[in-house]
Amino acid sequence: MRVLLTIQYLGTRFHGWQKQPGKVTIQQTLEDAIFKALGEECQTFASGRTDAGVHAWGQCVHFDTSTKIKAESLAYAINRFLPTDISILKSQEVSPEFNARFDVVKKCYEYSFYASNISLPLLDAQFARVRPDFDYTKATKAVKHFLGEHDFEGFCSAGKQTKTTVRTIYNIELQDLGDNKYKLVVCGNGFLYNMVRIIAGTIIEVGYGRIDPNKIPEIINSKNRSRAGKTAQACGLALKKVEYK
Amino acid sequence: MRVLLTIQYLGTRFHGWQKQPGKVTIQQTLEDAIFKALGEECQTFASGRTDAGVHAWGQCVHFDTSTKIKAESLAYAINRFLPTDISILKSQEVSPEFNARFDVVKKCYEYSFYASNISLPLLDAQFARVRPDFDYTKATKAVKHFLGEHDFEGFCSAGKQTKTTVRTIYNIELQDLGDNKYKLVVCGNGFLYNMVRIIAGTIIEVGYGRIDPNKIPEIINSKNRSRAGKTAQACGLALKKVEYK
Repeated sequence: MRVLLTIQYLGTRFHGWQKQPGKVTIQQTLEDAIFKALGEECQTFASGRTDAGVHAWGQCVHFDTSTKIKAESLAYAINRFLPTDISILKSQEVSPEFNARFDVVKKCYEYSFYASNISLPLLDAQFARVRPDFDYTKATKAVKHFLGEHDFEGFCSAGKQTKTTVRTIYNIELQDLGDNKYKLVVCGNGFLYNMVRIIAGTIIEVGYGRIDPNKIPEIINSKNRSRAGKTAQACGLALKKVEYK
Repeated sequence: MRVLLTIQYLGTRFHGWQKQPGKVTIQQTLEDAIFKALGEECQTFASGRTDAGVHAWGQCVHFDTSTKIKAESLAYAINRFLPTDISILKSQEVSPEFNARFDVVKKCYEYSFYASNISLPLLDAQFARVRPDFDYTKATKAVKHFLGEHDFEGFCSAGKQTKTTVRTIYNIELQDLGDNKYKLVVCGNGFLYNMVRIIAGTIIEVGYGRIDPNKIPEIINSKNRSRAGKTAQACGLALKKVEYK
């Protein structure tokens, strides 16, 4: 049967999702736990890769197994062999045609950060730190320009090839959490390599006054990576939710 | 001069505040950093000890120094020598009579927890996990009984001696943070050893239906440790704020 797992992880000590020789990755750690629990070598397929240091509240992963254990019980069976920074929240049987990567219709990310000239140990695991002169009111003016369908070629790091760099942002919101903490929530039909971190980095630079928010449409249209902001730190990013048909 | 530091720490890897031979503690780590920054061996005095695994958003600590560095700049000077899980938020000169422990007029703690049968890696550093049958509505009925002045002898672990076990709770509130996350906020004129964790543990057992909330006054008056709930896990506790005259 084909099984869909919803998993949560703290990405801090991992070299991202994707298996790589000699590196501790989430995919390798998960496949090792599945092998220990089921005695089967199963290949896992995630909704998408997450980079080194990036977290997930609900990453979705499918794999095929011939186990006799009920799909709903697999979460408990496999969790016993996972380290404390990865946890399977849910396991369910899906149709053999289901694909955790290609069937995605919507993905939501959160980018969390705080503005301070001093680092805050109780936030650092899941928040990026930005300069204390970050201005929320300025930054919010940039946000709406990312909404809708755009060619995000300029908001993409080199290294991965995709057929098209056109993506649709369904929803984007910069929340003020109080105490100089902020959260950027972005949902879309898909994201290019580092796209959320480059959007976050650009909005943060608008908050510094370095980028004019009215220039965002022009920066997007330029398709020029060097016109967008820096790629924001990995630790602030979390894959919140993946939705399927 | 006498200096007051406001410090934040993630308590996870520390054996609490207090110096102990052969153990990694916050006090020892801080005194080592002060020595590296100022070349002076300074003894530090906190508002109170925190236990192993307990966090602080704003612990207060005083020490005496003959340094020529301005008090306001000491935070930056010492932070350079602190690990990433301890940070000095503020440093200021105080009168030579000021005492970070004896001058406290109010302390606030937060106890954070979530109800789930599966552990959540993105919460585990700063939230305790409780059983999924925890009922918030039941638990809130226990809270008001702790308000005011009581003899908390039964809400205290053995091991520390104090003149009196009478303490006043100024404010106590159980907040529903959504997604089965909860936060107990407790402010008082002082707290006995493990007192907040035993109050939290008792309220959690009320939420399980194991303790009748109407019995709380009787349990307090019994001064019998075995009638209160279990001491809740250290990782959920954080010293939020310390107030002085």
